[in-house]
Parts: sequence; C-alpha cells; structure tokens
Amino acid sequence: ADVRTTVEAVFMHYGMSAEDAKQSTDVLVYADLRGYDTHGVSNMLRVYVDFFDKGKINPAPAWKVIRESKATATIDSDTAHGGVIGPEGMRLAIQKARDCGVGVVNIYNGGHYGAAAYTAAMALKHDMIGVSMTVGGLEMTPTFGAGKLIGLNPIAIATPASKEAPFVFDASMSGVAGNKIRIANRLGRGTLPAWISQADGTPIMDEAPVPEDFMHLPLGGTREIGSHKGYGLAMMIEVLGSVLSGAAAGPDRRVFQSQQMIAYDISAFTDLELF
Amino acid sequence: ADVRTTVEAVFMHYGMSAEDAKQSTDVLVYADLRGYDTHGVSNMLRVYVDFFDKGKINPAPAWKVIRESKATATIDSDTAHGGVIGPEGMRLAIQKARDCGVGVVNIYNGGHYGAAAYTAAMALKHDMIGVSMTVGGLEMTPTFGAGKLIGLNPIAIATPASKEAPFVFDASMSGVAGNKIRIANRLGRGTLPAWISQADGTPIMDEAPVPEDFMHLPLGGTREIGSHKGYGLAMMIEVLGSVLSGAAAGPDRRVFQSQQMIAYDISAFTDLELF
Repeated sequence: ADVRTTVEAVFMHYGMSAEDAKQSTDVLVYADLRGYDTHGVSNMLRVYVDFFDKGKINPAPAWKVIRESKATATIDSDTAHGGVIGPEGMRLAIQKARDCGVGVVNIYNGGHYGAAAYTAAMALKHDMIGVSMTVGGLEMTPTFGAGKLIGLNPIAIATPASKEAPFVFDASMSGVAGNKIRIANRLGRGTLPAWISQADGTPIMDEAPVPEDFMHLPLGGTREIGSHKGYGLAMMIEVLGSVLSGAAAGPDRRVFQSQQMIAYDISAFTDLELF
Repeated sequence: ADVRTTVEAVFMHYGMSAEDAKQSTDVLVYADLRGYDTHGVSNMLRVYVDFFDKGKINPAPAWKVIRESKATATIDSDTAHGGVIGPEGMRLAIQKARDCGVGVVNIYNGGHYGAAAYTAAMALKHDMIGVSMTVGGLEMTPTFGAGKLIGLNPIAIATPASKEAPFVFDASMSGVAGNKIRIANRLGRGTLPAWISQADGTPIMDEAPVPEDFMHLPLGGTREIGSHKGYGLAMMIEVLGSVLSGAAAGPDRRVFQSQQMIAYDISAFTDLELF
C-alpha cells in the first residue's frame, strides 16, 4: 500500500488524474508482485519520470478512437502514458469481443505500457484470452545486420484454464528484454550468450561485460541457432502492432510507440473445457 | 503444369473432387515455387498418400461451421485434408473481416495444411493482413524437458506493402521445421546445433548425425539462449490454434490437428501508406 501511494503521488505530481495515476501504478506493481523486476517500480518509474521531465508524456491526454469497425478500433493516444492508454485499449477490445467474438484495438502513437502481460491478463476475468504486443525503440539488429533497425517488440498472451492457474506468457522477440541489460548494468553484472552483439553486429556468444556500444540480437542469437526466426517474429509484431495502424516500421516509424490488443471471447469459439 | 496435373490425379485417385484436388495441389506447388522444398510435392505428397492409405484423411468431408459470431467461426472439418480446409477457413476469415474489420476462424479437427504461409498469403489480394497458425504432433520437448509434449506449431504472417513486395514470414517455433529433419535424413545429412535433443532431452549443440531417437528443441535450443521463449511461443500457438476451439493442448489434445486463421482488413485500421 505504501508503494502504491508513493508511486501514485509521483504520477499525480506530473499532472495525471488520480484515476490515471492509480491505473499506471497498478501496471508497475503488477510486475513487481510477479517478480518482473525489469518492469516494476524500481526499474521503470525513473524512466517515466525522465519522460515526464522531457515532455515526452502528456499527463492529461485527449485520446480518441480515430477509426472504428464492428470488431476493431484504432486509437490515437495523444501521447498518453502507456500505462494509461494500454489498459484503455484492452478494455475496448474486450467490449468489442463481447459483441463480435473477437476484438482488436490498435494504439497509434502510444506510450511505454510496462509489462505486456498486464494488458493481456485483463481479459482473464472476462473468460477471454488476451493478446497484447508493443512496438517501440530501435535497439535490435536483424540477423547478419550491423545497424539498429527494429524494436525488441514483446508479445504477451493470457488464457484462463478450467482447473489450472491461468497461463500467462510475456517475452520480447530479442534474446533478452532491454530492461535486463539496464538492470545488469545497474547491478554491475555482465551479458550472457546470444543477448547482444558488439558494435559492429558480431553476436556475443559468451559471458562478457556489457560493452559501451552494443545492439540487441533477435531471439536465437545467430543464424545457426535460429535468430532469423526471432527477427521474423519481431517483424510480425512490428506489422501487427505498428504498420497496421499506419505507424510504419523500423526507422520509418511515424510515432514513439504503438500497440495491438486482441481479446477472444472463448464462449464464441467453444463450450468445451479449455485445459 | 505437368506437376500440377500429376499431383491432382493422385488426390483424385483417393476420392477428392476435382476442385479440392486443385486446391490441395496449389498449396504444395506454392511451396515448391518459393523454395520451401520441405513443404513441397517431393517431401509432402508421400506423407499425404500414407495418410490416405491409413484412412486418416476424409477425401469427401462434410465440414461445417459448428459455432459462429459476427467476427469469428469454429469449423469442424470432418477430418478433411488440411490443404482443403485451411483455405476454406481463411476464405471465411476474409469474409468476416470485410464486415467486421477482423475475422478469426478456428479449425477444430483439421488436417496437415502444408506451408502456413499459403493461407496467410491468401489475404494479400484482398488488401488484408493474414495470420495463420497450426497445431499438431508431439515432437518437441519443453525447455529442460525429457518428453515429447508439444507441437512444432508454425505461424505465418503475410502483409501487403505500398511500394515493396509483400512481407511473408513462416516459421515453426522449434529450432527447425520437422520436415527439415525428414529431408536431412533423406539426403544423408546431419543435424545442426540447437535443432534437436538426444533421447533423454539433452540439447545437441554441435553438428552431428541425426540420432535414431530424438526430440525437437524449442527455438533457442537451450535455456541460456532463450529456448524458454521458443517454448512459450509454441504454447501461445497451442492456445490460440487448439485450446481456443476446445481441442485442448499437448498430450490431452482431442483431435489430430487444429488451426487458427486471422484476416485484418487494413482499411478498417488506417488510410495511411503501410511501408
């Protein structure tokens, strides 16, 4: 409760409404409670404070749906904080899924929305499967590449189960989440094999100190071990999360970050037990 | 043309209609023309012939939609050939997307549908993005596993582009497609690092002959290089492609194969240029 009160106060200090501050705090605390230190308060709040200080986040956005069909919508977030607009997007996807069986909401011009699993898991209490993906940054080099051309592009899925705990999966399509390098640096630790490349793109395939200049590698690390698949999956997320809403891809991107939220209403597909 | 006529004759020999034989042949020839030898005539037709001989494919299925909502449908294929029911599923997804912005069709009790890219790419000429995934077989061991508990579970995405060729990606969530091992064995070649494990689950991380007993490894090969992500992605596809339509997961699966087809109508999301 103390952490929540403190973090909410920080968000409100920067001009957020109490409601938005509460939502944004819940995203961070969700990560901490589940052991995602990378996306919790200690690692991310300082980044958001920096974004606020630099005017990168609009604390009182007039976000709106700019395009809509029965089962889909595209939102322009008006540079909202991702911890606000991500959950808004998933709420709309869930509402559309209730009517159409599936709902897809793309957020054009979104923000950093924390752990992708948070929004995916919002679907669970509606007996829906949630999928959430986010596109932003240019920290990864393609297989055989020597330049930062694509985002780390995480995807998350959450599904309820009949008798078991929900299944929740969340991973970037790079060898490791960007925040893992940030936390390794903070703790004075090195990099592990297949996480990052040297400045010229050569994959680092041993334990080593984090070099000053590096690029993230796609999941797999090298072509031999399948990094073309990690790169292709990152492109898939770039297409669904960013290109589909007109935000383009890689260095051509028109906005800071973009997301796609999908909600599947299970009862529209089956009445059999899931697991 | 000779290859098409011959392959169609084989399918018709087993009782398929001329129309279904033509569709099934097109799926195989698509793979050959694009250099996916693994999923072309030479590698797959022999497998389908074996399926027909064993009565695993119904050449004249009475497939039907068993559950439907505005933007979604679940099909029971009546044990159709995948090369028939896969394209039928994507046609229905495209039709739903035209009305709702997105269409999702799950095929419960589907068959082997060849290269996943074929059905994904069907969306291209409708100015839609296609996603296609398939669940079947139990050839892969989870990270740290010692048993075959999950399918290789390929996913494909196809997106049109404004000025460039379409982007089409198709990959299994294992280190390598099952058919790559089949073709390596046929050609007397070995396995490469991170493709498969020894019979006890130990990842093979060098070039080596294909052992008699082996299991596929998730993309990444070992935990250190990220195979927990490959395993998680395979589970994601198991959930969307199989669990969602009630076909369950892994060793509990109720059917032979299952698929999910998604079509996104781009005009429902944006009027900006894509790439």
